[in-house]
Order: sequence, then structure tokens, then C-alpha cells
Amino acid sequence: MTIVEQLTQALRCLPGVGPKSAQRMVYHLLQHQRERGLTLANCLESAMKNVIHCSRCRNFTEHPLCHLCQNTSRDKQSLCVVETPADLIAIESSQAFKGFYFVLMGKISPLDGLGPDDIGLPKLKQRIIEENIQEVILALSPTVEGQTTMIYIQQLLKDRNISISQLAHGIPSGGELEFLDGHTITAALKNRLKC
Amino acid sequence: MTIVEQLTQALRCLPGVGPKSAQRMVYHLLQHQRERGLTLANCLESAMKNVIHCSRCRNFTEHPLCHLCQNTSRDKQSLCVVETPADLIAIESSQAFKGFYFVLMGKISPLDGLGPDDIGLPKLKQRIIEENIQEVILALSPTVEGQTTMIYIQQLLKDRNISISQLAHGIPSGGELEFLDGHTITAALKNRLKC
Repeated sequence: MTIVEQLTQALRCLPGVGPKSAQRMVYHLLQHQRERGLTLANCLESAMKNVIHCSRCRNFTEHPLCHLCQNTSRDKQSLCVVETPADLIAIESSQAFKGFYFVLMGKISPLDGLGPDDIGLPKLKQRIIEENIQEVILALSPTVEGQTTMIYIQQLLKDRNISISQLAHGIPSGGELEFLDGHTITAALKNRLKC
Repeated sequence: MTIVEQLTQALRCLPGVGPKSAQRMVYHLLQHQRERGLTLANCLESAMKNVIHCSRCRNFTEHPLCHLCQNTSRDKQSLCVVETPADLIAIESSQAFKGFYFVLMGKISPLDGLGPDDIGLPKLKQRIIEENIQEVILALSPTVEGQTTMIYIQQLLKDRNISISQLAHGIPSGGELEFLDGHTITAALKNRLKC
């Protein structure tokens, strides 16, 4: 196999990249972006070798403790539980939460062979006890697996005096009513707010 | 910037990769495909450093002469001129052409500052003379720039006794007539074949 063919093949490990787009990427890099291609190769190697999980929140980081967990100015009493690092970034970008995080890196899913231990729930409980956390926000996605995980965590913490909440369900900001599904409208009606 | 942020940024050099898909790629590699991520890094570095242009057909290769040009069993008398390496692959996969290629790596486009020298036309003429090529097939795309390039090459070779042809225009295989544009149908009618 030529180097060009090897690179086209290797790019297929990226999600959403098929044979045609891999080919397009290879020729684009070779023709216009050799310098940036080399930078990408270095970043990739460094990330694959050095990125580990934060010992406190399980997020990806190159340090034993991630930069969020190192931040001493955040609210130590509240903890937000999310499924993925991408969810964490979405919540951070809203700037509406100032506490710490715990990243499950998945959700309870017997079909995929993922149980409570695989998503770090014993560690979550231990951390909540050790750090004397008062409020837990379960920011999990409203899927069957997400709800299962949420119920499991609630059970796990039910003998402790902790405020547990989940994200509100309702119409998204800027959403047009006519295009929303029935479940969302039902939730929005049920949880309607007094004006 | 953390390593994860650096990698997300670096992936943006790939065509069609925006901030969201770059993020998705990073987390996918970190969580599921570290080994393949490292392989990709190595392939990328090797390609960016070692891939050059074939001295004969200008295609990408890691050798002075690409594997197609090294193939002695092909038809030495006919030459197919294509715009990009991807076009060459498309023609090769049809298995309908057994001659050699010349890859322009672009087309004449004054707006982009690309003239005949930038796409290697002097070299094309020299090669046609030196290798005593009898037939030239211009497999360029039917765009304004492609047509301009085609006319330029015809002018370049008009004092030589060479058969020059271009790809037929007409309805594509499996194409449904009702969805074809007027230009294509006009070409298909004009170039109709006796049954």
C-alpha cells in the first residue's frame, strides 16, 4: 500500500469519515496544508499518549487533576453529573453552573454491557461523602438509559441528606411550538410556570 | 490550551470538519480508538514529510516515479489528462483506460491566480513530444475553468499530429431523465447514438 493509501485508510478511524471524505482530506492536506497536517500529527500523538482521566471528575485531561477540579474559586458544595465531556463543555459554555462536575463517560446500558461500576458510580458516591457535597444535579440525557442511570444514582444516595435535582423539561429557547414533539409539549404543559 | 483543546483545534484543518465534529472526533479517539489514533498520527506525519509529486505524471507518490508510471505493461501511446488525483482514481476504478496519466493538480483559473505554468502544461507538452504520444484524452470537468484548460491544451498541441479527444457528454448510467438538467439532455440529444 502506498503512503497515500495508508493515510486514507487510517483517517477512516474518525467518526463520520467514509472512503470519499478520507480521500478528500488526504489530497487537501497534501496539496494545501502540509504544515497544519504535521501539527495535527503531533497533537494526535501527544493526545493519544498523554491524555488520561482526571482522578476526581473522570474528565479527559493530561494532568492528574483537570483544570476545572484545580479551580479553587468554584462552589465546593454542588456537583453536576454528566454523561460525556461534550455535555460538560455545553453546560460550562452556558455559564449557569459554578460547582464541580462528575463525568460518567457513558450511561448504564445492559445491552452494551455497561453497569454501574463501568461508569464510576461507586467513585461518585465516595466522592459525594468525602467532599460533603450538598447538592447533586443530574444533567443526563432524557433517553431510556439516561433515566435508568438517574434512578440508580437517586437510589444510591437516598440514605444521605442531599438535594438531588434533574434538568427541567420543556420547550427549548427559540423553539417553534409547531415543530416540537408531543412528549416535549406534554412536559412543558405539566411543568408550566406561573407568570 | 489543554492537549484536548489543541487536538480539537488541529483537526479543523481537515476539510468539512467544524468545531462540533472536531470535538466528537477527539472524544471518540480518546475513548475508543487510541491505537488507531496513534496509527493515524504516524501515517499523517509520514505522508506530510515523504509524499512528493511523480516526476512524470505529477501525481502524489513517495517515490520519484509513481507505481502507475512504473507499470511497463500499460499502453505507452495514450495519455489521459486529469485535474486531480481523485479524478485519476475514478478513471482507474472504471478499468476502461490502460494508458498513462498526467495530473494537472488544478485548472487554469485567473481568479485563483492559476496559469498554464502552475498546472504543468509546459511539462505536459514536453512529455508528449519526448514520449511520442499518439492520443491525448482530456478528462477535465465540464466547468468554465475545465473548458478553458481544455481549449488551451488543444491550442498547445495543434501543430502536432495527435488525436485529441474529450469525454462524452450525456446521461449518466442509471440517471433518471426527469431529474437531469437541460444542458445534459441537450448534450445527450445532440450526441445521440444510432441504434
